[in-house]
Amino acid sequence: MKIGILGLGLIGGSLGFDLKSQGHDVLGVSRRESTCKKAMEIGSVDQAATELSLLSAAEVVFICTPIGLIVPQVEQLISHLPKTSIITDVGSVKTPIVQGISHLWENFVGGHPMAGNTDIGIDAAQRNLFVDRPYVITPTESTPSHAISILEEIVCSLGSIIYHCSPEKHDRAVSWISHLPVMVSASLVATCLSESDPEIFQLAQKFASSGFRDTSRVGAGNPELGVMMAQYNRQALINSLYQYRHHLDEFIDMIETENWDLLTEKLKINQQNRPSFL
Amino acid sequence: MKIGILGLGLIGGSLGFDLKSQGHDVLGVSRRESTCKKAMEIGSVDQAATELSLLSAAEVVFICTPIGLIVPQVEQLISHLPKTSIITDVGSVKTPIVQGISHLWENFVGGHPMAGNTDIGIDAAQRNLFVDRPYVITPTESTPSHAISILEEIVCSLGSIIYHCSPEKHDRAVSWISHLPVMVSASLVATCLSESDPEIFQLAQKFASSGFRDTSRVGAGNPELGVMMAQYNRQALINSLYQYRHHLDEFIDMIETENWDLLTEKLKINQQNRPSFL
Repeated sequence: MKIGILGLGLIGGSLGFDLKSQGHDVLGVSRRESTCKKAMEIGSVDQAATELSLLSAAEVVFICTPIGLIVPQVEQLISHLPKTSIITDVGSVKTPIVQGISHLWENFVGGHPMAGNTDIGIDAAQRNLFVDRPYVITPTESTPSHAISILEEIVCSLGSIIYHCSPEKHDRAVSWISHLPVMVSASLVATCLSESDPEIFQLAQKFASSGFRDTSRVGAGNPELGVMMAQYNRQALINSLYQYRHHLDEFIDMIETENWDLLTEKLKINQQNRPSFL
Repeated sequence: MKIGILGLGLIGGSLGFDLKSQGHDVLGVSRRESTCKKAMEIGSVDQAATELSLLSAAEVVFICTPIGLIVPQVEQLISHLPKTSIITDVGSVKTPIVQGISHLWENFVGGHPMAGNTDIGIDAAQRNLFVDRPYVITPTESTPSHAISILEEIVCSLGSIIYHCSPEKHDRAVSWISHLPVMVSASLVATCLSESDPEIFQLAQKFASSGFRDTSRVGAGNPELGVMMAQYNRQALINSLYQYRHHLDEFIDMIETENWDLLTEKLKINQQNRPSFL
């Protein structure tokens, strides 16, 4: 199959490796000539160019740009594609993407491979990145079933675990376990940085150990990624944050009223149930 | 030197290993006969007994019981000790311990070795647990300097990094980087468990990855330990939680008002400054 990849970063470059190794003809497009050259050199794509016209022969195109560029790039891309081509994306938020593209292109299927790490760019691309990782597909009622089937076949070949849900349910689920933790953790780091007594601040820096390290990690990561989550999943994230503040207030109240039995019970429920998320 | 250890768990048992290997005569006391037997078998102590009278010959006694038992045990212990004996403890909160013991025993020096993990009991004891870890000593104005010197010498021999501060500053510092993260993380777990739509709840369980895993870890740990922190460091923790809620509200406000420039700036400050805690 001829498969196009628009955006040759960690996800696009890694997809290229796997699809090419399965014998597909992989066509890659990047804004930068140097990225195209690199993708060819490392064997992530068969052909690469900075022009969207390279993708006109593609039967399926994966949009792997940063989330804010997905809809604008599809708007430019579609004049180059036959109506039968299937477009999918890999954005980590789905509602605005699916809403933005569904009326532009019939054969569009939203997707979200939940793989990757903090590295970015074609240099971070790796083989088998998607093996045993969730790959969420978010079709709507009007998505053609053959487009879904073809995407599923490709995703299956990557070794991913496929999940189906609506874009809205996807965004609410990732708000709980991905976007809320970032803001909870960011607030923790900001709070610790606000200590005004220099002696206590320095002691806190010296005493910080694995508990602080783990709880603060995602709140001090890539700022652009944090802002992107908040921009594109704003309403679900706000709802999650309000729920979180309610539970935080409950913990504060238990400590203020010295309700140790209830605090013990709540912490036991956490201990018992967290493993179901791991 | 004859050194007593009251409480043969992870910390007490590990201290025994290191002190014995330096040639000290280590006397261990545990409430349980089986723990005494085990401590002798593994070579963590030279002698062990369930009676406090074993410690009457000790020049220095480390109190390594759970935090709630430290003051009550010292109250019982002192009738067995000569006035010259030095008592120290390893409790993770210092103000209530130092206040409780200072008027009972002149040669008392509060301490907090910041080592250990989630394992408990004599079976978890290990050699060199304290190497390169902070060991905080919290003397007061009335603590005899020779008692501080002798404790420093022992702590130095464990390979720890010694810090000195007041009990109150210790408790405020650990509130930021140890006790606040537990409550922040516990609130996150409780919030995610509260999702009432079963489909979204199940998706969240399936999609949870390293971000959720790390941010939720300490909030779903040992419930007794979490309650202990809240009980014994209650006021510092409440202050930290109020500060935290203020910063959380700022993040919520930035997202509600779509102030992406300010959100970017705050996340950049986090990214730049977190490494100073690691």
